[in-house]
Amino acid sequence: MLTGQMMDWPLLVSAILEHGAGTFGDRPITTRSVEGPVVSQTIARTAVRARRLANVLRVLGVERADRVATLAWNTHRHVELYYAISGAGAVCHTMNPRLHPSQFAYILNHAEDGVLFTDLTFLKLIAAVAPQLEHLRHVVVLTDPAHMPDPSELGELRAQVHCYEALLAAESDRYVWPDLDERAACALCYTSGTTGHPKGVLYSHRSTVLHAMGFSLPGAVPLAESDVILPVVPQFHVLAWGIPYAAVMNGAGMALPGPGLDGASLTALMNQTGTSVAAGVPTVWHGLMAHWQQTGERVPSLERIVIGGSAAPRAMLQGFEETYGIRAIHAWGMTETSPLGTVSTLKPSLAGVDAETRYAKLQKQGRPVFGVELRLAGGDGAALPHDGKAVGELMVRGPWIAAGYFKQPGSPLQDGWFPTGDVAHIDPDRYMAIVDRTKDLIKSGGEWISSIDVENLAMAHPQVAMAAVIGVPDDKWGERPVLYVVPSVERDADPDTLRAFLAENLARWQVPDRIVLVDALPLGATGKVKKSALREQWAAGHHATG
Amino acid sequence: MLTGQMMDWPLLVSAILEHGAGTFGDRPITTRSVEGPVVSQTIARTAVRARRLANVLRVLGVERADRVATLAWNTHRHVELYYAISGAGAVCHTMNPRLHPSQFAYILNHAEDGVLFTDLTFLKLIAAVAPQLEHLRHVVVLTDPAHMPDPSELGELRAQVHCYEALLAAESDRYVWPDLDERAACALCYTSGTTGHPKGVLYSHRSTVLHAMGFSLPGAVPLAESDVILPVVPQFHVLAWGIPYAAVMNGAGMALPGPGLDGASLTALMNQTGTSVAAGVPTVWHGLMAHWQQTGERVPSLERIVIGGSAAPRAMLQGFEETYGIRAIHAWGMTETSPLGTVSTLKPSLAGVDAETRYAKLQKQGRPVFGVELRLAGGDGAALPHDGKAVGELMVRGPWIAAGYFKQPGSPLQDGWFPTGDVAHIDPDRYMAIVDRTKDLIKSGGEWISSIDVENLAMAHPQVAMAAVIGVPDDKWGERPVLYVVPSVERDADPDTLRAFLAENLARWQVPDRIVLVDALPLGATGKVKKSALREQWAAGHHATG
Repeated sequence: MLTGQMMDWPLLVSAILEHGAGTFGDRPITTRSVEGPVVSQTIARTAVRARRLANVLRVLGVERADRVATLAWNTHRHVELYYAISGAGAVCHTMNPRLHPSQFAYILNHAEDGVLFTDLTFLKLIAAVAPQLEHLRHVVVLTDPAHMPDPSELGELRAQVHCYEALLAAESDRYVWPDLDERAACALCYTSGTTGHPKGVLYSHRSTVLHAMGFSLPGAVPLAESDVILPVVPQFHVLAWGIPYAAVMNGAGMALPGPGLDGASLTALMNQTGTSVAAGVPTVWHGLMAHWQQTGERVPSLERIVIGGSAAPRAMLQGFEETYGIRAIHAWGMTETSPLGTVSTLKPSLAGVDAETRYAKLQKQGRPVFGVELRLAGGDGAALPHDGKAVGELMVRGPWIAAGYFKQPGSPLQDGWFPTGDVAHIDPDRYMAIVDRTKDLIKSGGEWISSIDVENLAMAHPQVAMAAVIGVPDDKWGERPVLYVVPSVERDADPDTLRAFLAENLARWQVPDRIVLVDALPLGATGKVKKSALREQWAAGHHATG
Repeated sequence: MLTGQMMDWPLLVSAILEHGAGTFGDRPITTRSVEGPVVSQTIARTAVRARRLANVLRVLGVERADRVATLAWNTHRHVELYYAISGAGAVCHTMNPRLHPSQFAYILNHAEDGVLFTDLTFLKLIAAVAPQLEHLRHVVVLTDPAHMPDPSELGELRAQVHCYEALLAAESDRYVWPDLDERAACALCYTSGTTGHPKGVLYSHRSTVLHAMGFSLPGAVPLAESDVILPVVPQFHVLAWGIPYAAVMNGAGMALPGPGLDGASLTALMNQTGTSVAAGVPTVWHGLMAHWQQTGERVPSLERIVIGGSAAPRAMLQGFEETYGIRAIHAWGMTETSPLGTVSTLKPSLAGVDAETRYAKLQKQGRPVFGVELRLAGGDGAALPHDGKAVGELMVRGPWIAAGYFKQPGSPLQDGWFPTGDVAHIDPDRYMAIVDRTKDLIKSGGEWISSIDVENLAMAHPQVAMAAVIGVPDDKWGERPVLYVVPSVERDADPDTLRAFLAENLARWQVPDRIVLVDALPLGATGKVKKSALREQWAAGHHATG
């Protein structure tokens, strides 16, 4: 091989921080803190504190490759942890506080975390599992001395308890980031699988830096120095979709909501910081739009909203754009894809199309970001055409796609491609649309029914706030769809009306025979509807149906 | 080391092409062809032809790592060559047709090019050195059978002569790009050094892909799918600054001017293609603005102009912005930096400053792109502060910075940093400003005079179209500056008037005692003023001075 004669400059997380601090040092990171007040610091200051924090990690005995857990909201301290832990060569392991305590303890033990950084909010959760934690030596509470809890609140913990700000104050801010291999692990996120134990996705410095660059490309989610981005998506969900890296890389300001995720708190923080971009799951935007409708409040600075995590209903895309003049950008990804896979932006050649065509296109999950390859696998594994019709399992490949799971033997890959578990089609313009999760697709009388299609249609009806469809066993048809509906605030929902509405737009055999009205849908730890819980409820025969 | 569990997906030039073809397949590449007509093809079509071309290379006996030379204008065929040669694992070696024939032959022999692709324009140049070319086996003329020249026009060439379109037509467009190591060489550009033999910079796939991603970041030169970019900078100058990669990566359309680089041709092509961004050296923009002034022609679609290659005079930045409403973006780089190093965009915190402060900032070479680290080295090599005052040699580091030269022993690096040969300062906002080339700085009476400062000031006078300052030996002061001036079209230049004007803005000892009026300045092969030629002229005593 003739090797190019260019520098060996590893792609490291610490390079993002130092670039941001040097080039965009005055840009703000503003946090609604867990203690209450809104606090702000610059990127330059964040870098100083991250270097100090790296010295703290050394004092706590953290070595290269050690996993260090965080249990925290989106805050400046959590951003400092991202950079200090990874920058120092350890692995930043973000814990999801919404997990069941048994899963929570399983994950901390599986990752062998020796140090845990926690927000004040989560002390009870730690106390609940304290005796089970095998490896934990230090717990650092993310607050200042004035707000430190009594250590007894942490239960029977065999670990030393520290105050974050006291530790930082005691250390020097002189620290030289080590020169690491770019393929070294930098972060760890467990997927909340619906079956079996959670599985850990182990990101590398290389994958994280390349993902941040790919995320920032003009066709993806470019964050300019003049932007302020508010990630509503928690830092414990796939590293807040990588926003803390992309923002610092490009000098975008950040607005971090801490625990304040309700419509009123988000609206206030957005207006206080001049937020221009926000990112989160559909559930959050439902809440925000409801708040705006009820109060008449608005966020004039908000230009773009990124919607991911689960499919964005068309009504949401249209509502943001037409009612509020906010561009809604539908994106798709998963923990195993870092997460950005595809983004739905309109091709220039479609600029003049009618609203129907426009939203039909934007409602798709979109086109791949550079670095992500897509493929549809048929039943036999063979590649299916990109004709917008052929439906197969979505397979992905790229430098920020998982090739395995932490401490788990064997590879999930098939012929070098990662099988997503999503069933999709891809049109000739390369817009990918997810039809369903492989396991949620309903087979009725030999025909497939997409639960997502029926849900999206139901949510377009004014009586419906949220909807979920599951397949239930049926003697005659094999499976039949059941529709769960949360009625909208303003109106009652009437099953017969809804069924008639659905029948106008679906084949007769696709219309759910049974519609269940509920006050709320069960949500999983990542805010998605937990269909497994609905299936269990159905099996237990809990509901009267309309 | 704990290795992250992410896919090994190499960063390859072929991945850019296939991403562009699949995701942005319908975007246009429009060329003013060497044969005359304006022709257009899509990115998808370009990929089909590049695959076919890869089969042609195989037929011509090109193996991995072989250097393949191109001698061509900016055209769709030259873009196909970039992708096919690199994609197939060979090295795309772009030759500068403006070199002296002896240098031209030296470089072709040094690179050991076995195959040369040439535009019709350059047959005489090849003929002039034909007997000296040691390795050349095939010459492919970039045209169709109807325009093929008589092979005798190529002189005494010991190589087979082929027609590009005939070769393509004979091959299949089925080709699978090989899975290469991302550190493999993909392209080769020689720097036209002013002393000694030209030196080859050998880019890797990794450096080229990372450069294209860095180039596309929001703070650099983001090219959106809705853009059409016209690289006036030739594809034989540092790969047209990487634009053929960045454009395809992001789906921007391209307008390629072929040999038509005059103001009238450029204006016509811009208007025909809806060009929104253009990139080139100051000399080109002088010509374009002069054409616009003379004819009243305009390009309403043009939003941004990227100025690099040499320092942009303030009058140019201001003229584009205030007279034409076009944002002028000053950038800095060199062959050894792929080339993008810094870009001068205004920090959001400076949005409201007065014009004086604004242009003073924008006239600097700007802030580093993510991936490029800057450092100022003092005389002893120690790092100087970034205070906007301390002046030292600019050192750079990053994944797309050269670490050596092709077939040349030893490393140019100092402590892992590449010394640019530019003298610069960096301000606290991290804006870098080049004071001079190390070798052009003038030492007079123990004080330094920046030739660039004097040139920029002179160019601000309406009598001056172009200016260049050299230092000449002086018995009393060691060196004294001499100013060469090309008077502006509309007016004569008067040395006394100019001297008085300079004296208002410079220290007395900085004002050139001697001002030489000339019809034109000698330009080097890359369009920059060749100060070595001015020094020779001066030494030969050719000029009467004012």
